[in-house]
Amino acid sequence: MTTPARRFVDLKSPFPMRRGGVLHGVRLAYETWGELNAARDNAVLIFTGLSPSAHAASSVADPTPGWWEDMVGPGRPIDTRRQFIICVNSLGSHFGSTCPASINPATGQPYRLTFPVLTVEDIARGGYEVMRHLGLERVAYVIGPSLGGMTALAFAALFPDALTSLVSISAAACSTPFAIALRSLQREIIRKDPAWADGNYPLDHGPITGIRLARKLGMITYRSAQEWQVRFGRERSTQERKPGDPFGMDFEVEEYLESHAIKFTGQFDPNAYLYLSRAMDLFDLADHGDGSVSEALRRFKVKRALILGVETDLLIPIDQQQELAEGLKSPERHVEFARLPSLQGHDSFLVDMDRFRPVIGDFLRAGT
Amino acid sequence: MTTPARRFVDLKSPFPMRRGGVLHGVRLAYETWGELNAARDNAVLIFTGLSPSAHAASSVADPTPGWWEDMVGPGRPIDTRRQFIICVNSLGSHFGSTCPASINPATGQPYRLTFPVLTVEDIARGGYEVMRHLGLERVAYVIGPSLGGMTALAFAALFPDALTSLVSISAAACSTPFAIALRSLQREIIRKDPAWADGNYPLDHGPITGIRLARKLGMITYRSAQEWQVRFGRERSTQERKPGDPFGMDFEVEEYLESHAIKFTGQFDPNAYLYLSRAMDLFDLADHGDGSVSEALRRFKVKRALILGVETDLLIPIDQQQELAEGLKSPERHVEFARLPSLQGHDSFLVDMDRFRPVIGDFLRAGT
Repeated sequence: MTTPARRFVDLKSPFPMRRGGVLHGVRLAYETWGELNAARDNAVLIFTGLSPSAHAASSVADPTPGWWEDMVGPGRPIDTRRQFIICVNSLGSHFGSTCPASINPATGQPYRLTFPVLTVEDIARGGYEVMRHLGLERVAYVIGPSLGGMTALAFAALFPDALTSLVSISAAACSTPFAIALRSLQREIIRKDPAWADGNYPLDHGPITGIRLARKLGMITYRSAQEWQVRFGRERSTQERKPGDPFGMDFEVEEYLESHAIKFTGQFDPNAYLYLSRAMDLFDLADHGDGSVSEALRRFKVKRALILGVETDLLIPIDQQQELAEGLKSPERHVEFARLPSLQGHDSFLVDMDRFRPVIGDFLRAGT
Repeated sequence: MTTPARRFVDLKSPFPMRRGGVLHGVRLAYETWGELNAARDNAVLIFTGLSPSAHAASSVADPTPGWWEDMVGPGRPIDTRRQFIICVNSLGSHFGSTCPASINPATGQPYRLTFPVLTVEDIARGGYEVMRHLGLERVAYVIGPSLGGMTALAFAALFPDALTSLVSISAAACSTPFAIALRSLQREIIRKDPAWADGNYPLDHGPITGIRLARKLGMITYRSAQEWQVRFGRERSTQERKPGDPFGMDFEVEEYLESHAIKFTGQFDPNAYLYLSRAMDLFDLADHGDGSVSEALRRFKVKRALILGVETDLLIPIDQQQELAEGLKSPERHVEFARLPSLQGHDSFLVDMDRFRPVIGDFLRAGT
């Protein structure tokens, strides 16, 4: 699995996992854009959400659009002409990094469920190793949305001297029981698909139905009721109904979910999805502050922080963003809290670019 | 399937269904409490949510607690000493009424998916037939929560002269695309369980996994993130993990969902669930007002209406309650809108009795 712009780093073994166990022969995939300046102080490290690869933006080597194409590029808020940008494929994700579908060198077989428990901290440590591999002891910015934002927070807790500024987008210090319930159910839907076979499905033909249904539930939690009211209202599906099946699609919103879920199927290793999803549930920044989130945030050494959240986010509500911003406030630190009225819920950072671009662009320009 | 207090009415055939087709030999189950007064003006007709039976409250004949035990009884807001109360098991529900698991007299086999499309209007018409069977041309109140509230609205549209007052609780003129997406996914989860067998499962052993997972998703939409934050926070599950399965339950909220979902399994015929669930999606009060909800509401002849909603309702948000209340306002009509700050979301009418009881009690007492 490789693309023209993807590069790899092979880490020294063993790689100790936070909740126990070690990995051997860990490989991490990443991409870079722009050039490191002479002062070596213009690096930006991006962590991703649960499902993207390291291909955040197009480049000469790989001109296909990236998952954050509107945000990363020449003249864009994360400016490839001014900054040296690194995006890391999370440990546990299967876009080139070691994950449950990778071969365990000790057995010659895929890890599958013998992969150790994955935590957000392990993903953050992976990003740190990539940065060190590139000769950097410190980056100017660590930026991440959703799971990537949690990873950025974990990075700031684990490696307080390795970053100057933090940008957390639609992330939280921990998941609420409501978010946990929704993700736990997605995982159970996959695991109850008989094709999951206790994790031992053929790697080219997994629990397609389970992944498709779990993705639909994911999509529902990533957007907002308000957006769908405007977009779909009660518009009817144009699909023909199968005779004898009274339970096909009636409404346009059902078609929309179906088409998105089908696109996702086959793109993502189901076991990798399970591990990454559970990592979000297990994350708790309080673990880095003797049981207190505010103590963990107080220990951060970042000089500047931008916390962005969206009012319609169902999964990580705006109150959780505010908690981060307030916990970070200190006389020695510049903290900005952006409360955006975007309609697209948790996914707004991928969609409502006209609101996100200026906030992130202004913060990055002001810091250099 | 019968209980000591349950009574039945066998309707004249055929029973025409709103979206086409007819049923023969329709039977509806109901229960009653209290006595009709001499003026015959103290009747209350209750429609239920998607899953309950007609057993709203205990009685001498059946002392087991009903689904609305705190609301219906002697001295309760719906007062069995003052009112003659009828609760109807919805057409399509399998607690005694004709439903997809019933025998089609034409074939001697269960209807299953040959059951005609079920609409909220068909359920309302069923309630009207029960009332007529009991010798009533008009009831003082039609009351319903959730699907029951939609049914009450449909009743007021179809039979404007058959009620004096309306109480709609956590209901709406139609479902939003967000609510449709959530229910459509529940239905698909059931249908993708191989044990569903295209609706032809053995009636005593259906798609248990599908129903269990769909019920979990239902539960998530019936409560609120705020409630669960208070109740569960990040409390851990006390269940032992199975060795080799990294995806058991980590958190208390997962245990809570599991125990509730297991209780539901086997209580409800899966095909009946599919039909009732789709009926909620298809309902649109605008169908009774030449495409306009406000026109449909304007045509209601009720003298008094109480619209109750809850601020934390994820499934039928408070704005939809307000739309009903505003559409009903007219100089000839007394309309009350109660916007309750209950924490328990859509299900609050079953849980937050200290808020619901006084509002409903005051409205019923003021009307007699």
